[in-house]
Amino acid sequence: MSQRPLSSPWRQQMYDVIFEAETPAGRWFDIGLLVAILASIFFVSLETVEGFKRNQQPAIYYAEWGLTVLFSIEYVLRLICSRHPLRYAFSFWGVIDLLSVVPGYLEIVIGNSSRSLMTLRSIRLLRVFRVMKLWRMMNEADELSTAIWRARNKIVVFLAVILVAVTISGSLMYHVETLTFNVDPDTGVTPDTQFTSIPQAMYWATVTMTTVGYGDVVPRTVIGKFISAALILLGYSLIIVPTGFVSAEIVGAKVNGLKSRRICQTCETSDHPDEARYCYRCGTPLGEFEESEAVNEG
Amino acid sequence: MSQRPLSSPWRQQMYDVIFEAETPAGRWFDIGLLVAILASIFFVSLETVEGFKRNQQPAIYYAEWGLTVLFSIEYVLRLICSRHPLRYAFSFWGVIDLLSVVPGYLEIVIGNSSRSLMTLRSIRLLRVFRVMKLWRMMNEADELSTAIWRARNKIVVFLAVILVAVTISGSLMYHVETLTFNVDPDTGVTPDTQFTSIPQAMYWATVTMTTVGYGDVVPRTVIGKFISAALILLGYSLIIVPTGFVSAEIVGAKVNGLKSRRICQTCETSDHPDEARYCYRCGTPLGEFEESEAVNEG
Amino acid sequence: MSQRPLSSPWRQQMYDVIFEAETPAGRWFDIGLLVAILASIFFVSLETVEGFKRNQQPAIYYAEWGLTVLFSIEYVLRLICSRHPLRYAFSFWGVIDLLSVVPGYLEIVIGNSSRSLMTLRSIRLLRVFRVMKLWRMMNEADELSTAIWRARNKIVVFLAVILVAVTISGSLMYHVETLTFNVDPDTGVTPDTQFTSIPQAMYWATVTMTTVGYGDVVPRTVIGKFISAALILLGYSLIIVPTGFVSAEIVGAKVNGLKSRRICQTCETSDHPDEARYCYRCGTPLGEFEESEAVNEG
Amino acid sequence: MSQRPLSSPWRQQMYDVIFEAETPAGRWFDIGLLVAILASIFFVSLETVEGFKRNQQPAIYYAEWGLTVLFSIEYVLRLICSRHPLRYAFSFWGVIDLLSVVPGYLEIVIGNSSRSLMTLRSIRLLRVFRVMKLWRMMNEADELSTAIWRARNKIVVFLAVILVAVTISGSLMYHVETLTFNVDPDTGVTPDTQFTSIPQAMYWATVTMTTVGYGDVVPRTVIGKFISAALILLGYSLIIVPTGFVSAEIVGAKVNGLKSRRICQTCETSDHPDEARYCYRCGTPLGEFEESEAVNEG
Repeated sequence: MSQRPLSSPWRQQMYDVIFEAETPAGRWFDIGLLVAILASIFFVSLETVEGFKRNQQPAIYYAEWGLTVLFSIEYVLRLICSRHPLRYAFSFWGVIDLLSVVPGYLEIVIGNSSRSLMTLRSIRLLRVFRVMKLWRMMNEADELSTAIWRARNKIVVFLAVILVAVTISGSLMYHVETLTFNVDPDTGVTPDTQFTSIPQAMYWATVTMTTVGYGDVVPRTVIGKFISAALILLGYSLIIVPTGFVSAEIVGAKVNGLKSRRICQTCETSDHPDEARYCYRCGTPLGEFEESEAVNEG
Repeated sequence: MSQRPLSSPWRQQMYDVIFEAETPAGRWFDIGLLVAILASIFFVSLETVEGFKRNQQPAIYYAEWGLTVLFSIEYVLRLICSRHPLRYAFSFWGVIDLLSVVPGYLEIVIGNSSRSLMTLRSIRLLRVFRVMKLWRMMNEADELSTAIWRARNKIVVFLAVILVAVTISGSLMYHVETLTFNVDPDTGVTPDTQFTSIPQAMYWATVTMTTVGYGDVVPRTVIGKFISAALILLGYSLIIVPTGFVSAEIVGAKVNGLKSRRICQTCETSDHPDEARYCYRCGTPLGEFEESEAVNEG
Repeated sequence: MSQRPLSSPWRQQMYDVIFEAETPAGRWFDIGLLVAILASIFFVSLETVEGFKRNQQPAIYYAEWGLTVLFSIEYVLRLICSRHPLRYAFSFWGVIDLLSVVPGYLEIVIGNSSRSLMTLRSIRLLRVFRVMKLWRMMNEADELSTAIWRARNKIVVFLAVILVAVTISGSLMYHVETLTFNVDPDTGVTPDTQFTSIPQAMYWATVTMTTVGYGDVVPRTVIGKFISAALILLGYSLIIVPTGFVSAEIVGAKVNGLKSRRICQTCETSDHPDEARYCYRCGTPLGEFEESEAVNEG
Repeated sequence: MSQRPLSSPWRQQMYDVIFEAETPAGRWFDIGLLVAILASIFFVSLETVEGFKRNQQPAIYYAEWGLTVLFSIEYVLRLICSRHPLRYAFSFWGVIDLLSVVPGYLEIVIGNSSRSLMTLRSIRLLRVFRVMKLWRMMNEADELSTAIWRARNKIVVFLAVILVAVTISGSLMYHVETLTFNVDPDTGVTPDTQFTSIPQAMYWATVTMTTVGYGDVVPRTVIGKFISAALILLGYSLIIVPTGFVSAEIVGAKVNGLKSRRICQTCETSDHPDEARYCYRCGTPLGEFEESEAVNEG
């Protein structure tokens, strides 16, 4: 993103403020933008609450307008100070930035805040990711995303296993719950099952295996409850495996992280004693070891 | 499965396409089969949804027929190109393959899609496992199943502990909730308990201890809620143990995996320095170490 | 428990069969006992199901009687072959064994299966622990109970933290939900809160923080939902900590287990190379290392 | 806290009893205080239960008064024996101590136990933290709080990620569930959605992603259930990551804890063999190693 230098110094400065977060001004700009985005999300959410509709509350109406104007100015400034305005305009963030201001203006043309405009305005939500570069704990976020990324294949396999388990459990429970012999021995009536179809039963299986357990779909027959309890236990035994994998991945990353600092960047030798300052093979200086000041006092 | 060579070259080729996934043609066949199986599962599920019954929707009717014919052709081809057709026909997958096409033809004989045929057709679901050999992340799936397999005894013990806990908690809660002195001090009525029997109470205990918590069976008396809260906390303390076991198993497997590459395959010596290329005892070449190119540049 | 020898050989033999599980006969006795206990639990549970009451189903009535007679014979045999019959009679298991047969006989005296007798009969459940010595995976059960035992202090601290969190969250939510200004802006009615008292709110907090979430007590006001969502997130951040502790405990136990086999039992020296057969300090033979046959081929 | 000596010996003694827990008297004082605080919490909670209101039950009324008087005496004693009474009075605990007795006296002035006084009395809850210093497992609590503290940044990032996921999932589900084409094909009626607003949908998303799953807000349309199931699976994949992080943090702390005892406190050398008693570089004595008595028998 730091494609300097630009043609004129003020454009360069503006670029640093708007697109970067390394200068104090840039950081303040990003904090202001974050506040504006959060406020905008807050208002979009509030509008859907009964009694806070835009037309009922002029304050919300004007606040929304103010934010739309602010975002428009920001969009124009981004276009101006970008080195490749067109490339920016058609980039992912450029489109998101545009889509976050368009509904506000469309409303004037159409006359009333229609349903679909409100849906469109929700795209503004995605802008929250834009200012993520601000966070001082980016370091932690990196580690978190690295962990998810390293575990991606396992998560995919896990999701596939869950899907197969969900399909089979769902079909099984559908057939069990809708069997005709499920008659209450006392009253003689067939219970009104909530497993009305296989997709519904698969929804139940997903909700159950992840231990969410809404309770909107539950087995009502004795045999259904029995099989359901067995499936829950099997599902639970299955679902703790990916937790273990992610844990192992993170523990492994931590251990490897510590180890790799003792590996020579030149010749890859890795069995240096902890107090070594240089590779014993090729003399390349080694990275500092966390718990040791040996490098400074050797 | 690669029991080559077969009598004629085209049977050999067909065998490679249908039973293997190593050749490009074999891979495309498997992808096509996967799509067909998923479509078939989709249609079987859709048929159970009100408004999408087969007789109401001709499109589903024809799609189902097409898939039955496709699976029949596939079954015959498998029979033809298999070296031991009978052995295949009576193998697990052979029976599944047959059962996935039979209901379609039985329907013509019987005249109408009966309930039990639909149940039979659900067996088709199992075919999804057949194309699992396709997945390029088979490696990850292996690791996942190894982890489950290594933890199997612990999972069995855990399930037994859970069963005992479920039985005791269930009986306790049944007796607590149905005690006659549970009368509301204000209204003077006994609350209508949902713990109608011990099996029902055990169903509640299973749903609760796995943190699923449907809410279809909940304590309604004050003392029942109190004991229930205590059981939840005890159950939670218990249920996090197997998660830890699985994690430890996976971490252990990872650490051992790294270690074992430094163990000489001939004499089992295991204390080689990381840059060693040959066993210092018997000269057997060692496996390559992940983070080191020492073997190539020594 | 192996307090041999007893006065007469047949008493000794009977002792081995009834109290031990090392001989084939003893193992078969235990398996038979396990089946009888499970059947007895099954019948006690079944009796509470509407339509399976003992008086309605003669089969259950006779099965129950058969089991009571069987357990009586077993109790008498245990008394006879025990070296200290009195000590056995007043031991934990002796009392449990007696209590599992008494209700059956009391019933004849009283005439009808009263409520309290049924409760008493549930004590039979505890006998399931008696035959646990049978399990061939006792090894795993040991490891599991060791892990729980090692983590006991942390679990106690965790339970205390949860209790404090539950008390504070419950009180907070009670006050929030019963505040008088919680009036629906449209209908003008105060929602009928389910947080009727602080103990009820603490029950809600327990059910929520352990992610069980029955849904029988849920916030109904806007502010209650907001605070509830915040408490859920905080509670979730808190509740994953003990999971980590148990995992760490088990991982640690595993690593220490591997390490300790390299520690000399005589002089505690612990830095032996992996292929060492004797302590390099005092000559004591070392335990065998898992992945190494070095002991046999050195 | 051990700011000795005080002006007079009895004030010093009282200080040791009231503020410290090292002497037997101090420990008994703290245990008594803990019992009083727990009783006080119990009564405050009980008062909110229908049928146990203070005016209905004179026993509770008198017990409450007794506790208020006890806490008043304790407050005055703390003021007297503290070296800096004013500093104590305006410290966090001083204010809490005062606030726990004020409502009792205010009640006499006002005449009746008003709603806001009861809320104020709940502050007494916080006093439970005061006697935490009592616990002999403080060691474990320390480890627990260290683990939470070390993982704080990750927990914050995790909460931020969850908030973004909750906002996006909530908005998505709100729009999906309130779309006008969600008409039941059979009955022709639009289902009465429970996703009445975006904040309500965000509440649903929080409850769902943490696997609490009350079931008071659930999707009712087919497409809503489908998207909901997908979001649950994605959310579950996401939510197991912080569990792994905390586990890794604790495992790491444990491993580092063991390691650090082998690090010389003077020169930071860290590669001492396990049986070493002094640093091989500078001669500083090393900490004892857990599993080794080498220090005593070298």
